[in-house]
Amino acid sequence: MTAPALNPPKRILMGPGPSDIHPRVLEAIGKDTVGHLDPFYLETMNEMQNMLRALMKTENPLTFAVSATGSAGMETAIVNSVEPGDNMLVCINGVFGNRMTDVAERAGANVSNIEKPWGEVFSVDDIVQGIEQSNPAVVGIVMAETSTGAFQPIKEIAQAVRDAGALLLVDAVTSLGGMNVEVDNWGIDILYSGSQKCLSCPPGLAPVSFGPRAVEKLNNRKEKVRSWYLDATMLASYWGEERVYHHTAPINMTYALYEALRVIHEEGLENCFKRHLDTHRALKAGLETLRIEYNADPNHQLPMLNAVKIPDGIDDGAVRSSLLNEFGIEIGGGLGAFKGKVWRIGLMGYAAREKNVVLFLSALEELLKRQGYQLEPGAAVAAANSIFQS
Amino acid sequence: MTAPALNPPKRILMGPGPSDIHPRVLEAIGKDTVGHLDPFYLETMNEMQNMLRALMKTENPLTFAVSATGSAGMETAIVNSVEPGDNMLVCINGVFGNRMTDVAERAGANVSNIEKPWGEVFSVDDIVQGIEQSNPAVVGIVMAETSTGAFQPIKEIAQAVRDAGALLLVDAVTSLGGMNVEVDNWGIDILYSGSQKCLSCPPGLAPVSFGPRAVEKLNNRKEKVRSWYLDATMLASYWGEERVYHHTAPINMTYALYEALRVIHEEGLENCFKRHLDTHRALKAGLETLRIEYNADPNHQLPMLNAVKIPDGIDDGAVRSSLLNEFGIEIGGGLGAFKGKVWRIGLMGYAAREKNVVLFLSALEELLKRQGYQLEPGAAVAAANSIFQS
Repeated sequence: MTAPALNPPKRILMGPGPSDIHPRVLEAIGKDTVGHLDPFYLETMNEMQNMLRALMKTENPLTFAVSATGSAGMETAIVNSVEPGDNMLVCINGVFGNRMTDVAERAGANVSNIEKPWGEVFSVDDIVQGIEQSNPAVVGIVMAETSTGAFQPIKEIAQAVRDAGALLLVDAVTSLGGMNVEVDNWGIDILYSGSQKCLSCPPGLAPVSFGPRAVEKLNNRKEKVRSWYLDATMLASYWGEERVYHHTAPINMTYALYEALRVIHEEGLENCFKRHLDTHRALKAGLETLRIEYNADPNHQLPMLNAVKIPDGIDDGAVRSSLLNEFGIEIGGGLGAFKGKVWRIGLMGYAAREKNVVLFLSALEELLKRQGYQLEPGAAVAAANSIFQS
Repeated sequence: MTAPALNPPKRILMGPGPSDIHPRVLEAIGKDTVGHLDPFYLETMNEMQNMLRALMKTENPLTFAVSATGSAGMETAIVNSVEPGDNMLVCINGVFGNRMTDVAERAGANVSNIEKPWGEVFSVDDIVQGIEQSNPAVVGIVMAETSTGAFQPIKEIAQAVRDAGALLLVDAVTSLGGMNVEVDNWGIDILYSGSQKCLSCPPGLAPVSFGPRAVEKLNNRKEKVRSWYLDATMLASYWGEERVYHHTAPINMTYALYEALRVIHEEGLENCFKRHLDTHRALKAGLETLRIEYNADPNHQLPMLNAVKIPDGIDDGAVRSSLLNEFGIEIGGGLGAFKGKVWRIGLMGYAAREKNVVLFLSALEELLKRQGYQLEPGAAVAAANSIFQS
C-alpha cells in the first residue's frame, strides 16, 4: 500500500472558493496541536469569537465557528431556527437558494419559495408579497449568490421580515470579509458563512451567529434539534463559559481561522472591503475591453465574485483548462443552467490583489487570441491599471 | 480589534484525543491549498480512499472521510442507516453509547438499549437477547469506549446481528489505526472513525465506510436522509466517479489525513498495532508498581486508552494541572460518573512511543510523591523499561 508523496501544485485561486490562502494562515494551521480543553485553546476560542463578532458587527453571544464547512453552516442555521411543521420562505435566485430549500425540508419545514431569474435580486415588495402568501416563521435569503454573482441588499428587507414577526436567516458565505455585513444594525437574526471565501482561510469552518430572537426560539423548542452535531443549544454550552464537552474541536483549523481574522482586523474592515471593490472595478474595466459582459444586474454586482458571460464561439473547457495548466490560475465554470455559459472569477480575500487581476487578464487575452477572438493587445491590462492608478 | 499572536504551547498529548500529531502531518497540513475540483485534489481523494480501505480492511466503494469531526462520523453512520420509525438497538457501556442513542432518536429511530456497567463489554448472548427483545433494523455498538477504556470484540457479535437480518454499525473512533479492524471479514455494515486518535492527525475529519447491505438500504430509502450535509447518497456522487459538487471539501485537512495514512502504511499495520500494544504493556507495568489499577475488565483493556482508578487521597485536579503546566503532558479526566475517579491516559498514534511512557511515569511519580503517596523511586520507569527491553 503506497501512495505518492503530497506535492500540491501552486495555484492562484480565482474561482468561487476556496480562494488564495494568506501565507500567515498556512503557517498558523501547521502549529503544534493542543488538546481541545487546553486553557490555551479555550482562550483562542474566546478571542476568535470576539474577532468574528467584530467582523459581523454584532454583540450576539451565540457567535462561533461550526466544526465543518460552509454548507454545514447553512444546515446549522436552518435546523436550529425551524421546527418540524414551521413555515419557511426561501428566496431563490441561484443554486444556494435551492439548497436552502432542500435543507429546510429535511429539517421538517413547510417551505414556500419566491423566485427571480438568476442574476436578479429581490425587492422589499417581493419579500412582503412572499410573506403575505406563506406566513413564514423564518425567511431565508442569500446575500451573495456565488452561482450568479448577484448582490442582494439585506438592510432593506430586514424590517419587512421583522414586521411580519418572522426571523431573517442570511447566507453570508461569500460576502463576509469582502463587503460590509452588519448583523445587529440591519436586524439579521441568523447569519452563516464559510472560512474559504473572503477570509483567506482553507475550507473547513463555518462562522455562524444567532441573535436574541433566534436564541429565544431555540430555547423554547418543542422538539430537539434534528442534528446532534449541529445542535446550537449544546454548542452554546461548549462555546459558552460552561465549556460542556460536545465534540473534539478541529484545533488546527481553528488556528487557521484565528490567524485569518487577525489578518483582516489588522488591515481594517474598511480597507479590506475597499480592496475587494477596487480589484473588482479594475477587473471589470479590463473585461469590458474584451467585450465580456457581466451576468448580474449592473446595480447588483458582487465585487468578490464576477460571473461573466463566455463570449460566443469561445470554448469554455479549453480556456479554463489552459488557465489552470499553463498559467496556474483557477477560475470557476457555471453551475446548473449556467454550465458552459458563464465563468465565475473570484476576487476573494488574499486573491483580491492587483497582481492577480493583471495576471488573469493577460492570460485570458492570450487564450482568447488563440481561439481567434478579436482584441486589442494589452488593452485589458491597461484598462485595469488605469483603475488601480486612479 | 486586536488578538494576540498565535503561539500554542508544546504539549505531549496523552489524553483521549487529540493525540500527538506526526511532524510530517503538521508539515502536510500547511501545504498550498488547491481548488476542490482541481485534478490534483481529485487524485488525492482517490488515493486517500484507497489508503482508508486498506486500513479498514474493506473493499467497500463507499469509503470516504466526512468533512467534520468524529462525532459527525457517528451522525453520518446513523442518519444514513436508519429511517424514521426504524427500530435501533444501541449497546451502552459508556458515554458514547448514550450519544449514539441521542443521535438515533433525533434521526427518528425507535431506540432500545441494552446496558452494561462502565468498563464491561457485551457477550454474544447479550446481543442475541437484545435483538430478540427489540427486533432492530440496526444494532449500534462502540468498539473502543474512550470513556471507560474497554475493548468490545466485534467479530463474535457480527454474525448474531447478521443472523437477525439487522445491520451492524460500529464506532471505531478510538480503535482505527491502533488495533486490528476488519470491516469485510468481521461483517461490519457501517463503520465510522475520527482523524484525531490513532491516526496522528488533527481533529476535523471522520473516516466512514458503508458495506453492500447498508448501501442497498440507503438506495431504497422512503424518505430523504434528515441531514443534507451528511447525506451519503449525495456524498457517494461526490466521492464517486461523477464528482457531483456537494460541498467545498476541507482541502488542507485532507492533506493532513492523507499524510497520516501514508505514515501508517509505511510503518505497516501490524507494526503499528504492535507499537500500541507494547507501549500499553509498558505503561501498565509501570502503573502497577504505583498500585494504580485499570478500570476495565482485565480481559478487555484497550491498548490506546488506559482508564485507571485515581488512588484514594490523591487530588485529581492538582495532578492533571501540574502534569500540563509543569511537564507539558496532557492526560484526560473521567467523564460523567467517572469524573474525579478516573484518569484516561492515551497512547494513540504518534503519542504511543517509549519516550512518552517514560516521561509520563517519571512525572506522575514526582506528583504522587508530592501528595505524600508511598512509592519506590524509579520503580515505575524500571518496570516499563523491562517490558520495552523484553
